[in-house]
Parts: sequence; structure tokens; C-alpha cells
Amino acid sequence: KLLPPLSPPRREVVFFFFFSQIDHFGFLEDGTFKQRYLVAAKHWQQPGGPILFYTGNEGDITWFCNNTGFMWEIAEELGAMLVFAEHRYYGESLPFGQDSYSDSKHLNYLSSEQALADFAVLIRSLKQTLPGAQHSPVIAVGGSYGGMLSAWFRMKYPNIVVGALAASAPIWQFPGMVPCGDFYKVVTQDFARSGYNCDANIRKSWKAINNVSSSASGLQWLSEEFSLCAPLKNKIGAVGFKNWLQETWVNLAMVDYPYEANFLQPLPRWPIQVVCKHLAFDSTVSDHQLLQGLSQAAKVYYNFTGSSSCLNTSQTATSSLGLLGWFYQACTEMVMPMCTDGVQDMFEPEEWNFQAFSDECNVMFGVRPRADWADIVYGGKNIASHSNIIFSNGGLDPWSAGGVTHNITDSLVSIMIPDGAHHLDLRYSNDHDPPSVRQARALEVKYFREWIKQAKKKHHPA
Amino acid sequence: KLLPPLSPPRREVVFFFFFSQIDHFGFLEDGTFKQRYLVAAKHWQQPGGPILFYTGNEGDITWFCNNTGFMWEIAEELGAMLVFAEHRYYGESLPFGQDSYSDSKHLNYLSSEQALADFAVLIRSLKQTLPGAQHSPVIAVGGSYGGMLSAWFRMKYPNIVVGALAASAPIWQFPGMVPCGDFYKVVTQDFARSGYNCDANIRKSWKAINNVSSSASGLQWLSEEFSLCAPLKNKIGAVGFKNWLQETWVNLAMVDYPYEANFLQPLPRWPIQVVCKHLAFDSTVSDHQLLQGLSQAAKVYYNFTGSSSCLNTSQTATSSLGLLGWFYQACTEMVMPMCTDGVQDMFEPEEWNFQAFSDECNVMFGVRPRADWADIVYGGKNIASHSNIIFSNGGLDPWSAGGVTHNITDSLVSIMIPDGAHHLDLRYSNDHDPPSVRQARALEVKYFREWIKQAKKKHHPA
Repeated sequence: KLLPPLSPPRREVVFFFFFSQIDHFGFLEDGTFKQRYLVAAKHWQQPGGPILFYTGNEGDITWFCNNTGFMWEIAEELGAMLVFAEHRYYGESLPFGQDSYSDSKHLNYLSSEQALADFAVLIRSLKQTLPGAQHSPVIAVGGSYGGMLSAWFRMKYPNIVVGALAASAPIWQFPGMVPCGDFYKVVTQDFARSGYNCDANIRKSWKAINNVSSSASGLQWLSEEFSLCAPLKNKIGAVGFKNWLQETWVNLAMVDYPYEANFLQPLPRWPIQVVCKHLAFDSTVSDHQLLQGLSQAAKVYYNFTGSSSCLNTSQTATSSLGLLGWFYQACTEMVMPMCTDGVQDMFEPEEWNFQAFSDECNVMFGVRPRADWADIVYGGKNIASHSNIIFSNGGLDPWSAGGVTHNITDSLVSIMIPDGAHHLDLRYSNDHDPPSVRQARALEVKYFREWIKQAKKKHHPA
Repeated sequence: KLLPPLSPPRREVVFFFFFSQIDHFGFLEDGTFKQRYLVAAKHWQQPGGPILFYTGNEGDITWFCNNTGFMWEIAEELGAMLVFAEHRYYGESLPFGQDSYSDSKHLNYLSSEQALADFAVLIRSLKQTLPGAQHSPVIAVGGSYGGMLSAWFRMKYPNIVVGALAASAPIWQFPGMVPCGDFYKVVTQDFARSGYNCDANIRKSWKAINNVSSSASGLQWLSEEFSLCAPLKNKIGAVGFKNWLQETWVNLAMVDYPYEANFLQPLPRWPIQVVCKHLAFDSTVSDHQLLQGLSQAAKVYYNFTGSSSCLNTSQTATSSLGLLGWFYQACTEMVMPMCTDGVQDMFEPEEWNFQAFSDECNVMFGVRPRADWADIVYGGKNIASHSNIIFSNGGLDPWSAGGVTHNITDSLVSIMIPDGAHHLDLRYSNDHDPPSVRQARALEVKYFREWIKQAKKKHHPA
């Protein structure tokens, strides 16, 4: 089988804008904004062929489009049209243009509920205006936060979508649903299984950084060793440096794919194994030796292509992601407790402190998170009455800790991909794909076909 | 069997206030308001006894509480606690106190979605704070708009309520779902079956009013004949007078109960039959004769108790209803097309004109209705994937035209009460109740028991 192209041929995609209500839940603000969506209809069998609808998450929709090869690969066999809808406040879908992030007043319409309503109204409009789409069953597809959206979309708008694939969607990473430490445990396991003493040496590294960074010369040495663009100047700088490293290890766990890929960063195949080669020290290693290895390890993530002249500690991933918007969402609805203990994980112990988090949010955005809201509005652990949702999870993916990893009912099913990282199933197929992800994709398509059949039966009763 | 008291003994009800978010869907407005709810726990079997939760509609919750005897009558046999939650912007649950209706800015949080979120958050809080309520299954109960809310509540928050009784809930009285003329057809049928030539003479009356009101002396005669508090002065007055009469006949159709009752007004049993006695003219009747009969007919509705010294054309029903709030809701989400043709109904022909309606709303509240939103957000005709909802409808009730009057699935069921008017099943039982409503109530309780059993099974698996 030939390898598919790394991104869909440009000519197949058409960019559109839809005028969506800024506020679906109030009528005082009656303005609209231009929401971007992409359509690929080359293989669509009209009338009535299915629509695979990507529920865009916190970033530029073209980037998600290019990283969701699975949809491109199954379009022909399903005779499906592909639609990728951009999430409001990300990419080019800015409700107030350049002012969208200017203050809490302009940010007030950034929420998952508004985004779901955008998707629902867009689909309704497409079905009313696209010839041949009136009876097209629509299946929601999404990964990560986009996967949460696709699951919630089916739960809240079963009239609009006949089913949903929620890939690596941590819909249970909310207060009281899973232990706050599970996320970092998975990260740690990934490193533990990828090289000799790998997790142990990362666990050790924090102390080493503390030791070395306690002097000005140590800070300078660290900055040079890690080729930091902005040298560390003091204790606060060292704390930021440790946070940046921690995020780096987390990101590596998310993108520990079995082949060279460029999702958050360009990386080698099984990148954690490559990282761990630099951290295979015995317990006798000195602080400086360990940190030299750690620097090489970090550069696997930040400089695999060799094109970085220095490492920028203010960024850990692609700029296609809208970090500020996501912070705002975390500071309002998306309250996801995380904690570390340094024993079951390889990080410095840190408890989950909702009050401190809430105070930070108040300083940053002038809003306070509502810890219980997501549970109330999206059902939390009590979702068994819904139907036609696939929750796929990768065993290597830390977000699987907050995912649905067991079947809830016959039609709320979980697919585990033990060798998979963050929504590997949504990516283009690859010769290095483990059998588990091939099976997962086949099963996903099988469910899609079933949902499509159910929907057709409704419109053409026997 | 003894007749139950006309209203629940006061000592059984406790009034509470809950601090609810003014805006559940945005975080800029972080204020709360005092939402009123009533609790009657005399028969509650704790721990775990069920909670019957009345999803309050557009009025004072104590009035709904007193007119929902069904819940009071089944509390003991179910070991249930009763909760009646007031809908925001009605009764005493005013988000901005006296300013709540001052302008479109303050009205911006009056919506069914916000109301459902209020109910969800309130129930979550009750279950967390009331000893013994943690595992109590909650069943939503509501009539009319409250019935729509109870159905939508189960659809949108199946994690919060295990089922819903939606009594006389016109969830399909929205654009494109049912013919706009059906509502007034039912009204007309009620009058046609209640007396000789009754519908025909009402159909005739509009022309008679037009004829008589074309002169100043005629206007004066009409005003005196109908004992109007504010005499008619001109054509505009005559139009208002006809609208008031039309609303009167509609209200009579809603409350055509088989026994003396006081819902919208104090009325005799089978009030339309009493009304029609005054309208049993042959086709030879003169305009003045007809209008004299019409005046007697109207007084059945407005002066059954004999206590009204004059008729007030600015009011057609109890002041316990919050009309202004309902107008706002109709001008935003609750777009319910109605039309008449004068042939299949007994009213002056009038088409449904969305644009004119929208313009009126803009003048009145500075908002424009969104005709498709209710369909998109609440599923319209496409609700088969939901479960555990009873739609009960009265054959005499004009709102049955927009109701669910056939079973959709095994657990989305319709109960028809051919001899019932507007949510007769929710009222206290009465010796004059027709067998159909007795059967309906028995069936409703049977479903309640089933849902409770399902829920218990979940918490105590075999």
C-alpha cells in the first residue's frame, strides 16, 4: 500500500466562512462573526452521502485538518464529505477580530457551549443549503478537546449528529472524577518503559537543577548547557525552567508516535526512546552529568531538525495551538485537576490547589472557574443514557487517565490502543503503525457504517 | 374517597432560596440571584426516596404548586419529596430585583437554557447537601411551558433527572413542525361540540362587532353591553376588543375542566357548555342579539363568581402568570407560529407573519426572535434517541396541536386524555374526573416507578 500524502492536496479543500451568532444563549448581543470551515467533497456521494464533521478544538483548523489523515483516508470508502469547523476564538474565527482577547468582556463568548451551538447551527445550515445534503447523516469526529466536543455534541445535539468519535478525549479529567495524579503517572510510565533508569533520572533532575541554580554561575552554566535563548537570572527563572521541562516531558508522552512525525514538534520515531538514551545514568551520576544528559534529551524535542539556534522556554509546542484561549477556557469551564507526588510519578510533588488556581485566573482574566459546571452540564460519570459514541484512547497518552477506557453500554464504547499516544488513530496510517491502531481504525469505521445505516433506515423505512 | 384539600396544607411546604448564577453560560457576569423553591418532605422516605421536581414555568411557583395536586397525591405512595422550583424572572425569583424587566440588558438572562441550568445546579446542590438525598432519583414534572422544560430537562440533563412527565407540553409548536392553524382548530372543535351552533355564532360574531363598532353609538352600546371598565373609543379599541375575546375563547378551551375550578379564572364545570348556552342562535340572529349572547358568554369566563363590577380587556387570566416575561421569551426563543383561516376555525383569518412579529419584538424589547433556534437546540421532531419522557395531552386542549401525541419509542411515550383540557392530569383528582385522566395518572405513576427502579438498580447492582 502506498503511503498517503502528508497533507491533503490543497485543491481538494475549499475554505468557507459562516456567519455565526456571537451569543447563542442571549439576545442582547445580536452580532455575528465569520466562522471558518473547510470542506472536501471530492468523494461525497450525493444525495445523502454521510458528512464527517471535525469539531475543531483550540487551534488553527487547517492544522487539525492536516493532522487528521484518518478522515481523509476513509472519505472514499464511505462516500463522505469532510467538514472541518474552526472553534470560535481560534485560528481565523475571531468573534471580535483583533479585540477578541483584549479583555474579559470580549472573551465572554468563548465557551464549549457556544462552540457546540456554532457547530449545530452550521450543520443545520449546510443541510438546508447544500443540494443533496438534506438527509446526509452527520458523524462528529474530534481529538483531545475536539474529542470532548464531539462526544458532548452527540450528547447535547443527537438531533444533529448520529454519532461521534471522541479520540483521546479526557471527558473525566474534571474535579472528583479521576485521581488528580493519574495523568502524570502515565507520563512517568512512558519514560520508565522507554529506557534504563529514564524516569528515575528525570525524578532526580529537579533536585539537581535546584542545586545548580542556587548560584549565579550555576544559572549561567545551565543556560549555556541548554542553549536557552533567554539566560536564567534568578530563582523565579529556575522555577519557570523546571515548568518548561515538565511540560516538555508531558508533550513527549502525548506525541510518542511510532514514526517520525510533526505534530507539536518535528520528532523522530518513538521519541521518548531517543530522549531516554541521553538519560541512562546509574545512580552515581553527578548533578552536572545528569543535567548535560537532560539538555541533550530536551534537544531531541526542541531541535530534532537541528534548525534551532537556541531553546525558547516560553514555548513548548506548535504555535498553531491557541494557548491563551485554552488558558481562558481552563479558567472558566475546563477545570482539570492535576497533581504530582514525586513517588508514583517523576515530578516534584505538587498538590492540586483550586483556590490558588482560581486566584490566578482572576488576576489573569478577571474570571473565576466554576469547578462543578462541566460535571453538571456534560454529565460526568453519569452518561449511560446517551448513545453512539466511541471513546478511543492511547495507552501511552497521559490524557487517557481522564478518558473513558471501558465500555459503558453497547453504544457507548471504548477502544484502547495500548501502543498509541495522543489520538494516534486520527492520524494518517503509516507502515510503522502498531496493529492495535489499525484494528481501532477498522472498528471505528465499522461503527460509522452502522450509524449511517441506522440513519438511512429512518429516512427510508422498510 | 375524600376530596383532597384545594391547596396543600401550608405547614407541609417550606420556602427556600437558592443562590443561582445569573449567567451559567458566561463568566463575565459572576453575580448570583435568589431563586425560590418550595419543598414538601412529609412523605419522603430517606435515604434514597425519589424526588419529584416541578420545573417551574412562567409564573409564581406557589400558584403552580397549588395547581399540581397530582404530585401531592402521589407523594405518599412513592415515598417522594416534592420540590417546586421557580423559573427565573417570575414570581419572586428576579435576578435583578425590580430592575429585572427594566431593559433588554437586564432581560438578557431570561431563557429556557438558563432556567434548565438553574434547575440542574439546584438539584446537584440538594443532592450534595440534603442528608439522604445523594442517591435519590429525581423525576421532572411540568405542565405547559413547564412541561416543555421538563422534557427538555431530561433531554439535556439525563445525568440529573431519570425521567420526565411533560404534561400538555407543546414542544412542536415551533416553525415548520406542525401546521400553524391546528391550535385554533382545536379551540373551534371544543366550541362546536359544546352547544348548538356555538362555533358558527362565534365565527359570525367578528363581523357583527365590525358592523356595530363602525359608529360611535355602536361602540358605546358594545361597551355597555359587555360592562367594559374602559369604554371602546375607536377602531383600534375595537381591534383590541376582538383580540381580547379571541384570547377568552382560547383560555376557555384550555380550562374546559369537568368540574368547578379556578385555574386561569374561577369557572363552572364544563365552562364551554355554559358559555355555549348563550350562543345557541339560529342563522337568523341579528347582530345585536348575537352580541348580547356573546356578552353573557364572556361573563361566564370573567364573572362566574359575580364579583366583577366591570370587565377589564387588558387582562384575560390570573395575575399569577408573568405575561411580560413570556412575551420576551416568545420574542426570543419561543417562536410559536399560529394562524387562522375562518373556515376550519371560528376566528377572523390571519396569516402567520414572522417578519411583522419580529418587528414588534424589536420595538417592544429591542430583540429579534431566532426562528430556528428552538428546533436546533431542543431537537424538534428528531428526538427519538432520548428516553424516559411521558408526553401527556388533553384532546380538548389547543396546545395538544403542538404536543407529542403518538409514541416515539418504548420510553418516549404519549398519553392521550381525550376528555382532558390543559394538563388536567396534573390537577388534584376529582369525583368528576373522566376515566381517561384516571387511567393517565395511573400510567404515569407506573412509569415513575419503573424509572425509580431502573435508577435504584444502578446504585445497587445485583
